Amino acid sequence: MQFPQKVRLVEVGPRDGLQNEAQLISIADKVQLVNELTRSGLRHIEVGSFVSPKWVPQMAGSSEVFAQIQRDQGVTYAALTPNLRGFEDALAAGVREVAVFAAASEAFSQRNINCSISESLARFAPVLEAARLYGIKVRGYVSCVLGCPYQGQIAPEQVASVSRELVDMGCYEVSLGDTIGTGTPGATRTLLNVVAGQIPRGKLAGHFHDTYGQALANIYASLLEGIEVFDSSVAGLGGCPYAKGASGNVASEDVLYMLQGLGIETGVDLDRLISAGQRISLLLGRPNGSRVAKARLSL
Amino acid sequence: MQFPQKVRLVEVGPRDGLQNEAQLISIADKVQLVNELTRSGLRHIEVGSFVSPKWVPQMAGSSEVFAQIQRDQGVTYAALTPNLRGFEDALAAGVREVAVFAAASEAFSQRNINCSISESLARFAPVLEAARLYGIKVRGYVSCVLGCPYQGQIAPEQVASVSRELVDMGCYEVSLGDTIGTGTPGATRTLLNVVAGQIPRGKLAGHFHDTYGQALANIYASLLEGIEVFDSSVAGLGGCPYAKGASGNVASEDVLYMLQGLGIETGVDLDRLISAGQRISLLLGRPNGSRVAKARLSL
Repeated sequence: MQFPQKVRLVEVGPRDGLQNEAQLISIADKVQLVNELTRSGLRHIEVGSFVSPKWVPQMAGSSEVFAQIQRDQGVTYAALTPNLRGFEDALAAGVREVAVFAAASEAFSQRNINCSISESLARFAPVLEAARLYGIKVRGYVSCVLGCPYQGQIAPEQVASVSRELVDMGCYEVSLGDTIGTGTPGATRTLLNVVAGQIPRGKLAGHFHDTYGQALANIYASLLEGIEVFDSSVAGLGGCPYAKGASGNVASEDVLYMLQGLGIETGVDLDRLISAGQRISLLLGRPNGSRVAKARLSL
Repeated sequence: MQFPQKVRLVEVGPRDGLQNEAQLISIADKVQLVNELTRSGLRHIEVGSFVSPKWVPQMAGSSEVFAQIQRDQGVTYAALTPNLRGFEDALAAGVREVAVFAAASEAFSQRNINCSISESLARFAPVLEAARLYGIKVRGYVSCVLGCPYQGQIAPEQVASVSRELVDMGCYEVSLGDTIGTGTPGATRTLLNVVAGQIPRGKLAGHFHDTYGQALANIYASLLEGIEVFDSSVAGLGGCPYAKGASGNVASEDVLYMLQGLGIETGVDLDRLISAGQRISLLLGRPNGSRVAKARLSL
């Protein structure tokens, strides 16, 4: 029953969350969201994505968002940059940390980004090279680590191999994503043990989706495996694209509540987080996806 | 990372669940619910409560429900009997297992049943005596084991002491209820260790509420402590009486999904359980409270 004393929460609501919401919101509202998240005490916020607004209209205006947010020196404001063009735009917008996105599933890689896993890694190579040149940190995402919507089960060894390649290419951390939320705590522990055979645990983060309600159990299982970094999304922003109305990203408030109960330090203020999540939920006209927020606000 | 190979799920939806739903349903619909739950493979179903319909209108007609359900020989059909009058009615209705309900919190006991904890235990004494006479098994509930809406924190030693008294009085099992859902996995493990100092683990069951989204993490923590019996409610029936719209009982489907993922045997068929939960949710005109059901049915 040992676990880390401190956890870093990576807030993915403004990017991974809003990207998967149907409703578009203004740049000013995105800026306000990021500012509120900063004031809640979060030290790592994924702010936007530098991709074509033709493909992801929700992420249009990321440069403007970066220009307008009130930056706190101690906070990392990151952006997703799938290619060199995106990286250059991010750099011009003053971004100091970027992320790249690979899949552990061949079928998902083909259907989602239209190329094999190794082709996707080859595409990231110039981004990682440029990042090294400019002293920009790069975080790697691996999706479908506990199941794939197209091919079902994914071998932990496959996850370990893709994660290892990302680290070898220069990613300082790899976030393991249970994209469809089918993982359960035993599978999570097995996965982490296999991946930790290739990469130090200190370079691993957990990114759990709550589609089947398993996210907090998986995070608790990950804590017992010594994982100290978790991605989450305020108000559970970002539904599940594979099941209408179902949950996607685990709500940051719910993760924080559990961590606080475990006596783990995060530096984040729950009340401020709840209030940021409730404001954006009302703005999007969607139910607040955090159970803690619902209980606290008696929604 | 050891846990039990088998778990007994105690389905509390028809009693604890429906009792906390505003909408009343017919006896025929209750009977259909219990029959569907039986056919899903559940071996323990809490069917009703023998209390005055003046106080709990949702539980009116429990005798008729017991008379009309199709009983499966291998299934325990239980009822809540808070006093001797209720016990006698239950006996007349052919009930072979009953339950009594105490609190670990003095403040909750006073506000909920208008007497002290020890007075409430004294009231159960005649029920337990009569049960022994008639060869009826008695299950004990202890509420507020991880927090009280009126007095906040509850000492694990207090939970252990009430649980021990219930066992000494003749209860074959004590179900520990996190009535307000504020428990987190570390507190759960501490509690179980303290209570297990007084009572064998094999006599303990976990009854978690998902109000703060912590139920599955707490159940996983309990499994790691060797607990083999869990209460849950199909479709998460029974909202939280202390926070409008918030969740109460953890959804049986979500618990089962996790147990299946852990390779733990329950004998329950997930698809049949989902379909029973969806039917009763539609009938009550409420959203299905199971995340697994929402994902599977793409609600």
